[in-house]
Amino acid sequence: MEITPERIRQLLFPKSLAVIGATNYFGKWGQFITSNIVAGGFDGPIYPINPRADRLFGVKCYKSILDVPADVDLAFVTIPVQKVMDVLLECGQKGVNSIVMITSGFGETGEEGKRLQRMVVEYCSSKGILLVGPNTMGIISPYRGLFATGPHTRPKKGAVAFVSQSGNLGNQLVFWATQQGIGISMFVGSGNEAMVNYRHFLEYLEMDPHTEIIVLYIEELGKARAFVELAQRITEKKPILLLKGGRTASGGKTALTHTGALAGENKVLGKAMKQAGVIMVNIPTELLELSAAFSSVPFPKGNKVGVVTLGGGWGVVTSDLLEEMGFVLPELPKEVVDKIGKYLPPFWSKINPVDLVGTRDPDAPLVAVEELVKLEEIDAVIVLGIVGRKEVVDLLLKSMREVDPDTPPEFLKRVEDFSGEYEEHFARKMVEFMEVYQKPIIGVSLTTSVSGMVREVPGSKYKALFYQSPEQAVRGLRAILQYEMRRNHRMPLSPISDL
Amino acid sequence: MEITPERIRQLLFPKSLAVIGATNYFGKWGQFITSNIVAGGFDGPIYPINPRADRLFGVKCYKSILDVPADVDLAFVTIPVQKVMDVLLECGQKGVNSIVMITSGFGETGEEGKRLQRMVVEYCSSKGILLVGPNTMGIISPYRGLFATGPHTRPKKGAVAFVSQSGNLGNQLVFWATQQGIGISMFVGSGNEAMVNYRHFLEYLEMDPHTEIIVLYIEELGKARAFVELAQRITEKKPILLLKGGRTASGGKTALTHTGALAGENKVLGKAMKQAGVIMVNIPTELLELSAAFSSVPFPKGNKVGVVTLGGGWGVVTSDLLEEMGFVLPELPKEVVDKIGKYLPPFWSKINPVDLVGTRDPDAPLVAVEELVKLEEIDAVIVLGIVGRKEVVDLLLKSMREVDPDTPPEFLKRVEDFSGEYEEHFARKMVEFMEVYQKPIIGVSLTTSVSGMVREVPGSKYKALFYQSPEQAVRGLRAILQYEMRRNHRMPLSPISDL
Repeated sequence: MEITPERIRQLLFPKSLAVIGATNYFGKWGQFITSNIVAGGFDGPIYPINPRADRLFGVKCYKSILDVPADVDLAFVTIPVQKVMDVLLECGQKGVNSIVMITSGFGETGEEGKRLQRMVVEYCSSKGILLVGPNTMGIISPYRGLFATGPHTRPKKGAVAFVSQSGNLGNQLVFWATQQGIGISMFVGSGNEAMVNYRHFLEYLEMDPHTEIIVLYIEELGKARAFVELAQRITEKKPILLLKGGRTASGGKTALTHTGALAGENKVLGKAMKQAGVIMVNIPTELLELSAAFSSVPFPKGNKVGVVTLGGGWGVVTSDLLEEMGFVLPELPKEVVDKIGKYLPPFWSKINPVDLVGTRDPDAPLVAVEELVKLEEIDAVIVLGIVGRKEVVDLLLKSMREVDPDTPPEFLKRVEDFSGEYEEHFARKMVEFMEVYQKPIIGVSLTTSVSGMVREVPGSKYKALFYQSPEQAVRGLRAILQYEMRRNHRMPLSPISDL
Repeated sequence: MEITPERIRQLLFPKSLAVIGATNYFGKWGQFITSNIVAGGFDGPIYPINPRADRLFGVKCYKSILDVPADVDLAFVTIPVQKVMDVLLECGQKGVNSIVMITSGFGETGEEGKRLQRMVVEYCSSKGILLVGPNTMGIISPYRGLFATGPHTRPKKGAVAFVSQSGNLGNQLVFWATQQGIGISMFVGSGNEAMVNYRHFLEYLEMDPHTEIIVLYIEELGKARAFVELAQRITEKKPILLLKGGRTASGGKTALTHTGALAGENKVLGKAMKQAGVIMVNIPTELLELSAAFSSVPFPKGNKVGVVTLGGGWGVVTSDLLEEMGFVLPELPKEVVDKIGKYLPPFWSKINPVDLVGTRDPDAPLVAVEELVKLEEIDAVIVLGIVGRKEVVDLLLKSMREVDPDTPPEFLKRVEDFSGEYEEHFARKMVEFMEVYQKPIIGVSLTTSVSGMVREVPGSKYKALFYQSPEQAVRGLRAILQYEMRRNHRMPLSPISDL
């Protein structure tokens, strides 16, 4: 059976779907998934299958998939492993197109499970059914309004695709992406990959118009050569970020018990990945941080960076990190120093980083950022501490309300509103500058904000990006520069050092 | 004039204080500081000084410090640099004990500023006045209820002391510490260090009973040898975490314009710091992350780690990181496997990491953590994903309320309460196990929680610590192990690799 990108597309954009094992018994997988699909707003027909229920979550139930009076495109299977073969036969009879097999207890549990898994694959192949899993934690397809994972996270539509051989790690990354405002194009927990494996998803993502960045968590590479060839082709168009689980003996042993994966030859692998242009990371959160940069800002053409900072210390720390990671901070032409100087007290730094010395002039940060980003000598701008002041102002206002009976409440309200509006305005201007000058502008937030890292600005393909610390900004910038240099020159980078 | 620890203690525990330049003009330093001190609840006499106000923030005002009808122990000075000498003379006349000079425009601005700064120091010395700054962003002394910085953050009482030559970086770290629940013993922005420098604060912190961990941000070391000797002595008792700004040419140039600091010989410095037992970091957030470990858990005696994880992927990733950072994951004795197995389905991993395969049995994580932490072969435990489930459950409950008319609301409320209570219970048990077995247990939260990294448990000196990602947990564990091994053996570490 041939697994084409078109078959994967059908899986992610089903016309109708059934959940075999749907239930409202709190805490069961059949409850998580069914309620998530219904509450998530999937707008095609949904058929919960349960012999002992008439309706579930307000939706009509059927005793068997054979009772459904219309075609079923995609079936989720959440029933115990012992009963899987019975319902599979029914799915075959019904002409189901794809199955997402949540059920575990297959290849990951030993010889008997492996045998059962082979049977399931053989049967599905013979019936032309695409099988995801078994032992998967589900899929998310935001552009189809389909949210079918255990955790009821609903990431917004975006450009980042996640394929994960670990369901729990994948789900947690999706949860974080949602908290941080990072939009995704799809998520799939590929589970045991009995039939469909991560390479099939890659072939689909290569041509998926929604996907601009591919994020992978892989424990078992399988045919490494096939992956390298495929990755080499894809990375010319779209970046691939890879976290390889099981790099070490300990991690490899753990992976073996987890998905039954065997750790590859990791040193060889590292070289091959580099050759294929794959960006490897060692830390789950870095997958997200870097994907935020890839999906939010234009890519830089070189390693020359301008820095604007609300205060001196961050400027020093960021200069150090930039130089240590291979960037250069060009000097500023006199005209620019003079122009920015009009908005600042006479004792300001007059160099790059531009230290705004804590100015409260709302124009100063905008003038400084634009003057830097428009310079031919500068490829990217990092701006520190402008956004995130709202939280600081709010604390001040709280004190004022407690101890200053003389300040009119309307005035405090106005200050509060202004600081919120100013942050929105600043984010919009960052995006506007990126559109005009086609260079990345990356923010670092003064405080850990509830608004998350990525703020969308309606009408623009770019997004305002605010990391929580300077090193995230410098790492993000380095990753997009490395990708851009490789794509343009087809050669390893210098002087940007290795990850 | 001799600057003794006792003089620093008087600064941080003032009997009475004045703010020269106090105002309710919104956005001025004299407003930030005064309202913060009043709203922060300082319970000694406060004397705002302002020639044109009768009361400020509900407190009686004086036209000059000379009008104050009682002794003034500590004076904050926020008036413009041009008028500083006049008010200094008044402070001298009044017999003020210490001055925190917020005012900028001194040594950091050039030759004239340097001359003025020398004059100020000479005058203060002649009068026996301790001078902090100028160009400082203030001080915080939680054990005295004194919050005197621009941002109105009120970190709780704790064991971490922050000394920062950058006010803005220091303030941001304090803000984060407050968000993350990390308690502090003091914070000081040492500014231009015209008279009192960071080494004087170190000498005080060496004997301060509240301080267990010292965190430094330094741009100019000054007498490096003096620092190394002092640090070597202190690190035998208390860890010192150092972020050195101005390591690179770019950072050094930036630091020069910032505090007028000259970058040291950094390679030489790195070696000297290592010899002195100082833990150097390159990233501001890492100062906080590591200080959370130092201030929350017992230190491990060796590098053998047990891991408990809610799901497989995190276990793999954490095993990799542990091995890469020099840790070992011991095998589990059969009795322990059997004991834990009673709480888990038969297909669980049966190795270290203990994969709880997503169990919802509330006893399983507790049994697993205790069985591991009590083992002689294990020095520390990392537990992933138990806390932070509440956010996931809350999302599920939100869906249920939307789409499941059949589920009784009381039931959903009970589930909601249970998941919150369980997390508290789990945190309490972690702390209890740490007390009983005297080994660190470090959590990683499934989601980015609003509760922050550190949760205090009343009645215990240990705290429940939940990092946001596995690498933070492994790095935190490595830092406390490195410190402990050095302290006990007086020699460099092996096999834990270098930072």
